[in-house]
Amino acid sequence: MLTGVVAGAVFTSPAVGSILAAIRAVTQAGAAGTLLIVKNYTGDRLNFGLALERARAEGADVQMVVVGDDSAFATLKKAGRRGLCGTVLVHKVPSPCPLPAPNPPRLNPICPPHAGTLGLSLSPCSVPGSKPTFRLADDEMELGLGIHGEAGVRRMKVLPADEAVETMLAHMTDPSNGSHSVPYPAGASVVLVVNNLGGLSCLELSIVAGAAVRCLESRGIHIARALVGSFMTALEMAGVSLTLMLVDEELVGLIDADTTAMAWPNLATAPATSQRQAVPAPKEGPVIAQLETSTGPGAARVQLVLERVCSTLLDMQDKLNELDREAGDGDCGHTHARAAQAIREWVHAWPPPAAPAQLLSALADLLLEKMGGSSGVLYGLFLTAAARPLLNRSDLPTWADAMDAGIEAMQRYGGAAPGDRTMLDSLCAAAQALHALRSPGADLLPVLTAAVESAEAAAEATRHMEAGAGRASYISSAQLLQPDPGAVAVASLGSQRQGASSSAWPRHPAPAPQRG
Amino acid sequence: MLTGVVAGAVFTSPAVGSILAAIRAVTQAGAAGTLLIVKNYTGDRLNFGLALERARAEGADVQMVVVGDDSAFATLKKAGRRGLCGTVLVHKVPSPCPLPAPNPPRLNPICPPHAGTLGLSLSPCSVPGSKPTFRLADDEMELGLGIHGEAGVRRMKVLPADEAVETMLAHMTDPSNGSHSVPYPAGASVVLVVNNLGGLSCLELSIVAGAAVRCLESRGIHIARALVGSFMTALEMAGVSLTLMLVDEELVGLIDADTTAMAWPNLATAPATSQRQAVPAPKEGPVIAQLETSTGPGAARVQLVLERVCSTLLDMQDKLNELDREAGDGDCGHTHARAAQAIREWVHAWPPPAAPAQLLSALADLLLEKMGGSSGVLYGLFLTAAARPLLNRSDLPTWADAMDAGIEAMQRYGGAAPGDRTMLDSLCAAAQALHALRSPGADLLPVLTAAVESAEAAAEATRHMEAGAGRASYISSAQLLQPDPGAVAVASLGSQRQGASSSAWPRHPAPAPQRG
Repeated sequence: MLTGVVAGAVFTSPAVGSILAAIRAVTQAGAAGTLLIVKNYTGDRLNFGLALERARAEGADVQMVVVGDDSAFATLKKAGRRGLCGTVLVHKVPSPCPLPAPNPPRLNPICPPHAGTLGLSLSPCSVPGSKPTFRLADDEMELGLGIHGEAGVRRMKVLPADEAVETMLAHMTDPSNGSHSVPYPAGASVVLVVNNLGGLSCLELSIVAGAAVRCLESRGIHIARALVGSFMTALEMAGVSLTLMLVDEELVGLIDADTTAMAWPNLATAPATSQRQAVPAPKEGPVIAQLETSTGPGAARVQLVLERVCSTLLDMQDKLNELDREAGDGDCGHTHARAAQAIREWVHAWPPPAAPAQLLSALADLLLEKMGGSSGVLYGLFLTAAARPLLNRSDLPTWADAMDAGIEAMQRYGGAAPGDRTMLDSLCAAAQALHALRSPGADLLPVLTAAVESAEAAAEATRHMEAGAGRASYISSAQLLQPDPGAVAVASLGSQRQGASSSAWPRHPAPAPQRG
Repeated sequence: MLTGVVAGAVFTSPAVGSILAAIRAVTQAGAAGTLLIVKNYTGDRLNFGLALERARAEGADVQMVVVGDDSAFATLKKAGRRGLCGTVLVHKVPSPCPLPAPNPPRLNPICPPHAGTLGLSLSPCSVPGSKPTFRLADDEMELGLGIHGEAGVRRMKVLPADEAVETMLAHMTDPSNGSHSVPYPAGASVVLVVNNLGGLSCLELSIVAGAAVRCLESRGIHIARALVGSFMTALEMAGVSLTLMLVDEELVGLIDADTTAMAWPNLATAPATSQRQAVPAPKEGPVIAQLETSTGPGAARVQLVLERVCSTLLDMQDKLNELDREAGDGDCGHTHARAAQAIREWVHAWPPPAAPAQLLSALADLLLEKMGGSSGVLYGLFLTAAARPLLNRSDLPTWADAMDAGIEAMQRYGGAAPGDRTMLDSLCAAAQALHALRSPGADLLPVLTAAVESAEAAAEATRHMEAGAGRASYISSAQLLQPDPGAVAVASLGSQRQGASSSAWPRHPAPAPQRG
């Protein structure tokens, strides 16, 4: 890259004295000679030219190339092509540009063979403290503008990125565009620069880069390297320029060569392509056992339980929505009804697995996909964590463990705790009661009944709590007069109120299946 | 850096299935284990947490850290610090962050010790297709906002960059800011990240970076490394965040370590400092001889010539302005009068050098500094190039060479040619006549007279030319009815009209000085 750089004021050529000082500094540091790389603008030509003449008068060996890579104009104006972002490639790899004769009658702009740049912008730019350099309507964009807000060649209505890029490349490679066109045959290998003119977001720049890669590929052009970033900006201009340079292996090697210039990107030494290499990931991990047969008495019991849960939630829909209107966005009933509907359809379409771990994992998948919202993820988290202890055993103490594991995962990742006025209040109360299952000879029915009653009481108690997490935490507690809808929904899942008998609960491996 | 990355929709956590697929892909590729680095947002915590639970259920060894580096809030909210740009440093160097216990009751956000980030923005951002996330008045900025447009801690009137950065650093290091403050003692060594939130121009970002470096230095803090760029953006938000992380030599080594991640900058392995190492450049190159004595007959003649040129230009001021109103911006007379005034003052303050090369070089310096505009540079270029042949000899043929050299340089760098309706038309006509000086025994006076007459005729002839260069080239030739003011100004320099005798021309080494 460059040994020295000479900065002028914004959009102004540096002063001759500054350029001369830079040449002297480089010469004094022992350089065998100095090559000035100048963009083709009159002020820069004159000031760098004068500094060169003065440095030569002092005996320094100085040469100068003037870069003009603009592909905007079909007819060659006297001033020649403007210097744009292609100059950065000349900074990195000057070799394809022949040096001019020692004292040419006129220093014509040079450009690497088959290189060109074209800009496109949605907005003008403004020199600090001044008005914008031009005006563009909200639905317009300008093609072929310069980096100081110089006029372009065409205004057009805003296009989607793919079409905009196609328009740019068609203009750049149009053979009727005289010496400014860069006609690449299929099979050609190029370096592509997708340059942010200043005000484009990373998202937009990346969308343009993707479009450029696809568009070049569709023309059979190989993109040996792609540089995407802010390399030559026009202040805050919300636009982009595309630069193409034909390369061979040697040039690519020089593009790849290490440099300490901080503005040069950490470039991948690989071609850019829209082709994705798919890495197949196993749908299931290795330790999940085969699905148990999903028929027989276990399966029938599971279906019964799920049906009961679903009808309860559907019955509760309006009540939950009403509770949620006080504290949230009023859709808690809808969300749970959506889950219930999804479970019903799933159970009818496909007999659910009877093995508890597989059942809970399958339900987690289903709720994640169909329930939506934070509730879907929270239930998914609970069920996934609860499934783990049940993988290898499903006796009564393990069901208590499963409940605890589910609650722990919810707390770990969700960040809420009991007392925060969330579904955790009901769940924790129930879990506490279920710990009785760990006692030898525990009797399932009374324990479950106690758990349900505890959950209902805990849900009711949220009426007096301050919200510590979730959307309701943004509302003052004086306005929260009803119980938390999430806590109520969870408590309702085991409710006996509608005549559900305890038989609806899976008590695998209970000695004899009971039917409701 | 990262082995895998999982993208969600804009401002949305990625789906659990995507995260799980990434974990499976990394595991399948042979990783000994997977560390999830997650920013502290509820959706991300839940989705990554659930994916982790499911991957663990499949037997994968997965751990998770949740990064919270936001220094905006003085009081710790339950959700904890938000994850901001400091997360990028954790991606590069996770080692200072302790892994949480295998199954912590709550996964608290972690942050490298003594690290923090604070944002500041002049504008909101908008999710594509939606309205801005918040509103800011034109003269307001907001401190401490999040990367998805979340509210900050304070709005204030727009401040200059130095004061804005000072405000940010004061907030970040305020000991009353609880656990979110990063109190660096003088002598501490930090990594600084100056992060574009998306819509800041390179110029603005660099100004903020400079201010941050100066501000930290003034607190005695050593900036071991500075990263400046777009590392964690909020779409098109015109703002910046500053991240500080305390580092020791080992951490700096890890920051410096090579990576193939393209978004990591080509970082200089050197501290950032506002101190500049001045490279003294010689004011003059080595080959310029000592100034000749500037007294005696030669000096007097030079003074006389210059005085005559100046009074001519001052007399012509109104006429040149009038000519320029037709073709340019009407200041050609002013510009030349400014030059004349500067030469007069210079001659009166300091006897000009008598040696031709030194005289022309000194005049070039003076016009460059005082005349301004393209004219100043063009005259400077002409005089500098003309001085070169006169360095070692100053006989009559060499003066013809000098004239040619000056014209060549003007053409080479300026790009205009004779016939383009510029000062070159007068100069070239005069130069053609001066070629007679190369004939043995040439008589100076008639040659000079012929040159002046040729120049005047050429200037007059520009009246019928189309402008091929300069500002007038944008005007149709039908509107250009007067001669070119630059050509007229040049032709007037040798004019006899006001009674100037040929003695006003330096004809070194003429046998006897003549006084006017």
